[in-house]
Amino acid sequence: MSIHGKNFIGNKLSATGDKSSKIYDINSGNALDGDFYHATSYEVNTALQLANKAFIVYKQKTQNQRADFLDAIADEIMNLGDELILRTMSESNLPRPRIEGERGRTMGQIKMFATLLRDGSWVEASIDTALPNRTPLARNDLRKMLRPLGIVSVFEASNFPLAFACAGGDTASALAAGCPVIVKAHSSHSGTSELIASAIIKAVKKCDMPSGTFCMVHGSGRSVGQQIVMDERVKAVGFTGSTQGGMNLFNIANKRKTPIPVFAEMGSINPCVFLPSSLEDTKKLASMYAFSITLGVGQFCTNPGLILAIKGAKLEEFKSDLKKEIEASSPAIMLSKSIQESYEENKNKAIEQDGIILLAQATQENTSSQGRAVFTSVDAEVFIQNNKLQEEVFGPYCLLVECKDIKELNEAISCLDGQLTATVMGSNSEIVEHINLISNLENKCGRILFNSVPTGVEVCHSMQHGGPFPASTDSRFTSVGTGAIKRFVRPVCFQDCPSEILPQELKDENPLNIFRILNGENTKNSV
Amino acid sequence: MSIHGKNFIGNKLSATGDKSSKIYDINSGNALDGDFYHATSYEVNTALQLANKAFIVYKQKTQNQRADFLDAIADEIMNLGDELILRTMSESNLPRPRIEGERGRTMGQIKMFATLLRDGSWVEASIDTALPNRTPLARNDLRKMLRPLGIVSVFEASNFPLAFACAGGDTASALAAGCPVIVKAHSSHSGTSELIASAIIKAVKKCDMPSGTFCMVHGSGRSVGQQIVMDERVKAVGFTGSTQGGMNLFNIANKRKTPIPVFAEMGSINPCVFLPSSLEDTKKLASMYAFSITLGVGQFCTNPGLILAIKGAKLEEFKSDLKKEIEASSPAIMLSKSIQESYEENKNKAIEQDGIILLAQATQENTSSQGRAVFTSVDAEVFIQNNKLQEEVFGPYCLLVECKDIKELNEAISCLDGQLTATVMGSNSEIVEHINLISNLENKCGRILFNSVPTGVEVCHSMQHGGPFPASTDSRFTSVGTGAIKRFVRPVCFQDCPSEILPQELKDENPLNIFRILNGENTKNSV
Repeated sequence: MSIHGKNFIGNKLSATGDKSSKIYDINSGNALDGDFYHATSYEVNTALQLANKAFIVYKQKTQNQRADFLDAIADEIMNLGDELILRTMSESNLPRPRIEGERGRTMGQIKMFATLLRDGSWVEASIDTALPNRTPLARNDLRKMLRPLGIVSVFEASNFPLAFACAGGDTASALAAGCPVIVKAHSSHSGTSELIASAIIKAVKKCDMPSGTFCMVHGSGRSVGQQIVMDERVKAVGFTGSTQGGMNLFNIANKRKTPIPVFAEMGSINPCVFLPSSLEDTKKLASMYAFSITLGVGQFCTNPGLILAIKGAKLEEFKSDLKKEIEASSPAIMLSKSIQESYEENKNKAIEQDGIILLAQATQENTSSQGRAVFTSVDAEVFIQNNKLQEEVFGPYCLLVECKDIKELNEAISCLDGQLTATVMGSNSEIVEHINLISNLENKCGRILFNSVPTGVEVCHSMQHGGPFPASTDSRFTSVGTGAIKRFVRPVCFQDCPSEILPQELKDENPLNIFRILNGENTKNSV
Repeated sequence: MSIHGKNFIGNKLSATGDKSSKIYDINSGNALDGDFYHATSYEVNTALQLANKAFIVYKQKTQNQRADFLDAIADEIMNLGDELILRTMSESNLPRPRIEGERGRTMGQIKMFATLLRDGSWVEASIDTALPNRTPLARNDLRKMLRPLGIVSVFEASNFPLAFACAGGDTASALAAGCPVIVKAHSSHSGTSELIASAIIKAVKKCDMPSGTFCMVHGSGRSVGQQIVMDERVKAVGFTGSTQGGMNLFNIANKRKTPIPVFAEMGSINPCVFLPSSLEDTKKLASMYAFSITLGVGQFCTNPGLILAIKGAKLEEFKSDLKKEIEASSPAIMLSKSIQESYEENKNKAIEQDGIILLAQATQENTSSQGRAVFTSVDAEVFIQNNKLQEEVFGPYCLLVECKDIKELNEAISCLDGQLTATVMGSNSEIVEHINLISNLENKCGRILFNSVPTGVEVCHSMQHGGPFPASTDSRFTSVGTGAIKRFVRPVCFQDCPSEILPQELKDENPLNIFRILNGENTKNSV
């Protein structure tokens, strides 16, 4: 299958614009197969029209029908076979095992939502039956459940070309919720996106979903992306990427005639607090953290960019051990030329800040496509005064904040911005002793880990991936795990609704056999 | 108890400012008891400091402790006895039965949240246990639950001086969630607010909650209100009132260094769609709707401000019947002088719009404190073109939109702004026939009612009070019913957390006996 570079306007391919982009191999500089046609304003508008019409039909599909559709998407993506793997490898510079793993994760996510739909209880159905004889006022029959918001605009991330992209968590959860999706493809892996989009369209047709249930367009965030988010027909936005990109969308969305929710996951430096007991085996600790810092060339949103610890002989040992690990680490190819360049620039800016000490960097010189790990330190007093030291350096960069005592450590925690994760290393008795410090840290993050490294985000019910601003724009939601579906729904209450038109989830007989809050009781009983 | 007019800065009273306001009797123009001292910037800051410190302690209180606290608040409010009723009557011009009923509703809300806390399952606890032997990667132990956001800023509404005010739904749900509350008292019923605040402070002391768990300040929205919402220590805002007031807070909150959620319920015109069969008994229908339009002088957020119907002989009959009802209705005293003046102004502006026909108004002249009911009509074609006709006229005002057929009725629905409620009148068979029209209407509202009037908002699990913008700023949440607590919490995931510091809700043995999602299963089982 050759790459055509066209936009997916509902089930139709379209390339009427006169602007296009290419993708280049990071090492050779040679162009990869495909000219990607930026969507015209007319094409974007047609996509929105189709998606808006599709919503009328798609929202009426049963949860089982949507589950079958998701399974069909997963099947069609697997049917792409090695062509997908190869294209993604060449666009992302990620090795085969990582891409195959990420495809597995993507399949897992899609099927997880299918399972959630077949179970059906996630809709938070609640029924309060009528009390016609209540005094002084009768109670009406009230039934509430979560219903889809409408068209969802999804922006692909650069660092997960499959799992946070065209058929990634945002798309899977929005489709699961009953919302049509319009994807803005990422310019660094548009060929991967095209292959995935073609698989989704096959599933749309196979499952007889309306054209417009899924669309994908190419083009810049500033023109194509902005047009989509500004359009009143769009009801929510999913985004994973830079703070600047996320905040642009957030500000646009809030200035619309009708503001809409933007779920932007904008990164995090993932503070790791080393309580004194954790420094007993400094070699083990250094090796554990060096692995996490350099994993995937540091290009994970949960990369440990910040360590906070108390000064002393054991911390000096740890610094020396981590220094050796970082120096011995191999520079590796980053996701794209522009990400490599940003890493160099941001790393240098960070090192130039007052009070920053460069403790170590990978001794092996990097090529112009590679990132080289860096380990720095700063005194807590300086860190507390300079908020710039909290800016994320996307890549294998880690800053150690040295505190004079537990009080200063707690002060440093108090001044932290919102984070996706925070980690505590220490013995159980030490953790119990510092419960207030840990409670303080909990206020700053969406997930708090104990005696581990922050990299690795499990896809499951209990995952929270999203933290207080600026980690994400809305800490009340997660972009990973079953909870992600809650971003694209809202409760609707049906009062005295004729049974004939009540959604299945709210009918007396409970035909889907789901858990409901029936007059305050959590039960599968019928009314 | 005389009214002192001071600010409640935690458990201390304070009146260090040099600015104060009085409240005047709407009829006599005489000042009521009390000078209300506007909080100074220093006082507001002290309140924020205390609330921030209180959060550290208050968030660690168990659900049962918070439930006892809520019950104590309810008890102390009842202990205020008739003094509260009399003060509220003189400040709001609402009759005794209404105020006593509203006090009952307020008690009911507070006790409902206490019951919710004692049940405990609302926290959405979810546990995925560790899978150490899973390949290729082990799974960590992950446990998630809803945790309090931090300080909540509450703005009192004018139209419910008890139920949407100092100890109303916003305060009760925020305190239930584990968040300290800072109330900005409404200038039209500050004496009522003072009495309620004094009752809350008694409960704070009785239950040994930290000073700062509750604060209340007087002053203008532009100075005192703005200072609170702009402060980085504040984590969420609850508001019920005008579109302008709500949007001011929404815009301030989004421009902060860290944007925060604002739950502003900003009103609604509550469209009522009359399908042809509903016009069979026009007398009964007209009497039902005249009652709802004039109830409480139309000062309810679910007041039916818009009727949509199809032209014909039966509609002419209905118009004539409703005209008689409206003409015969008695003008009545409104909540305040400024609300009465706004009603006059907005009503006149509405009537002056092109194409509006004044069908009826109460024949009895109103005094300068009274509102007089008005019934107007407009052709659907004009309505669809002029969005100004959707602006709420807060008071007993209703506009009939006359459509030529069901298609035009559907078009008129399509152009509606977001609403708190929408109502459908019609036979079951007609409702089934027009399922797409009803689905279209559902997209526009938070609650859809059948064969009823929109006034009357039940406080229960299944209530949804909050709709698509501009009815409220966040349609995914409700300000009435148990769901209101979800506005002030966010999920936090604990990974491999030592059992000693896990919240009770997430401990293996399930000591609170709550429902949890345990490895995907909804159960009360222990791990």
